[in-house]
Amino acid sequence: MLKPRTKLYINEVATRDGFQNEAQFVETEAKVALVNRLSRCGFAKIEVTSFTSPKAIPALRDAEAVMFQIARVPGVVYTVLVPNVRGAERALSCGVDEVNLVMSVSESHNRTNLRMTREQSFAQLSDVVSVVRETNVAINVSLSTAMGCPMEGDVPATEVLGWMQRFADIGVHGITLCDTTGMAFPSQVGDLCRRAAEAFPRLELTLHFHNTRGMALANTLAALDAGIVRFDSSLGGLGGCPYAPGATGNVCTEELVHMLELDGYDTGVDLSGVIEAAKLLPDLIGHDVPSQILKAGQRLALHPMPAI
Amino acid sequence: MLKPRTKLYINEVATRDGFQNEAQFVETEAKVALVNRLSRCGFAKIEVTSFTSPKAIPALRDAEAVMFQIARVPGVVYTVLVPNVRGAERALSCGVDEVNLVMSVSESHNRTNLRMTREQSFAQLSDVVSVVRETNVAINVSLSTAMGCPMEGDVPATEVLGWMQRFADIGVHGITLCDTTGMAFPSQVGDLCRRAAEAFPRLELTLHFHNTRGMALANTLAALDAGIVRFDSSLGGLGGCPYAPGATGNVCTEELVHMLELDGYDTGVDLSGVIEAAKLLPDLIGHDVPSQILKAGQRLALHPMPAI
Repeated sequence: MLKPRTKLYINEVATRDGFQNEAQFVETEAKVALVNRLSRCGFAKIEVTSFTSPKAIPALRDAEAVMFQIARVPGVVYTVLVPNVRGAERALSCGVDEVNLVMSVSESHNRTNLRMTREQSFAQLSDVVSVVRETNVAINVSLSTAMGCPMEGDVPATEVLGWMQRFADIGVHGITLCDTTGMAFPSQVGDLCRRAAEAFPRLELTLHFHNTRGMALANTLAALDAGIVRFDSSLGGLGGCPYAPGATGNVCTEELVHMLELDGYDTGVDLSGVIEAAKLLPDLIGHDVPSQILKAGQRLALHPMPAI
Repeated sequence: MLKPRTKLYINEVATRDGFQNEAQFVETEAKVALVNRLSRCGFAKIEVTSFTSPKAIPALRDAEAVMFQIARVPGVVYTVLVPNVRGAERALSCGVDEVNLVMSVSESHNRTNLRMTREQSFAQLSDVVSVVRETNVAINVSLSTAMGCPMEGDVPATEVLGWMQRFADIGVHGITLCDTTGMAFPSQVGDLCRRAAEAFPRLELTLHFHNTRGMALANTLAALDAGIVRFDSSLGGLGGCPYAPGATGNVCTEELVHMLELDGYDTGVDLSGVIEAAKLLPDLIGHDVPSQILKAGQRLALHPMPAI
């Protein structure tokens, strides 16, 4: 178990991983205002947007505008998703702190999600790495379906470690293990995290959980127990899963921070500020969000005793 | 940590703790059919109903009829809530295996929920214990607000242990520590469970979590880590919290069993059977239930690869 007040690093992904799944376009001004608000909440990192083709993800077609207009707070790492060299060049022109590359460790999911074989993805991302390594911008790789594939089922840990090795070999700085569709369970998480941390002590290792089957916070405990200190989360629990309509998506930032702070960790995140930000989401996206903390309030949000 | 395949004991509480909060009356026949279905799912215990005043809880006004009509499966403990001696006599006349008594460890919640001081509750429940100890029926006490009170806030562990001692002294067999409004967090759960198990090694200790703030499964991990093997849960996540409208209630049976079985524990519960039973709930109660497993399916409920 980690020591009390261990420093944790939270990466807020709602404006990228959340908004990209939303039918309703969030206006550029509103995106900028939300990122600015999140920048003042104490997150270690914010995944702002994605430099993908505007045709592929119209929801994030304003990537440059958002990156140029936000008021960047020193100390916060501003990261963006980048699918290819063209995207990397666009991102670099905006002065991002980090690029985040994505591929799946299962062939079926990679082909479905990215319309390429894994080898094609790796070749394309290697080209991105070559370009970005010429700069002082950090490189993270998010490995999807690292704890299970919704089409193939179990994904062997050796497969995950193998892809980590290939990216480590070409010089990326960090790797995020993504439970893309909420298939991870605690003992599996603990085992994979221990093996990954032992094999790659110099990589920044981040865990990305979904709450699809209710286990996101339990899986977080298991990862903490294995020494993991970096986590992705999404304001309001935004971020869907096309394979489980109606199911919750990414682990909810305010639920994650609420638990971690109660357990004595130092997330650096201002929970009240996060909750105020989450309250803005339903208006921005046109529907309710799965956050339990928004509905129930913080643990010590007490109620008056009713008249008897 | 418990050993792999450790036997766990799950108490299904939906027909009592769940239905008592529902506006729509569930017909006696439907209650009996549901209990019968749950009886075949491998639960260690089922909290069938409550022998409270029909005026106080009209939803469970058919307690005798349900108890007499269900087809009891040998090995399953059929327990019922009993508030007073009158209720105990009614329950005993139905041949229940166990009575479950309830009071809160915080004064405000006890006065709000039961309209008595804690001392009045204890005196009343002591009378019940005297009556039931003359029989071979087991006695469990559920201590509400054991991990926080929605009106008073933190509840000291010493207060909880003090009430456990008073009930241990009058000879009850088991005590359930209830996180009535979802205020528990993992490190608190671990600490309280360790202290309770150490102080009362001969009491059957059960944990009752709510998912109000998303932490029910994380708290379950913390309890397991402290050696707890008995858990309450509610089909579909039924069971509300009047202080957090819209928030989820009791920990969802199918989410709990799903995680525990993946983690290698032996719950004895047939998860597929439970899921089939949970699917019946929306028709019975007239609204959707918060179960994530109902929406997303089990972890290895795989999806075909879409045509590309």
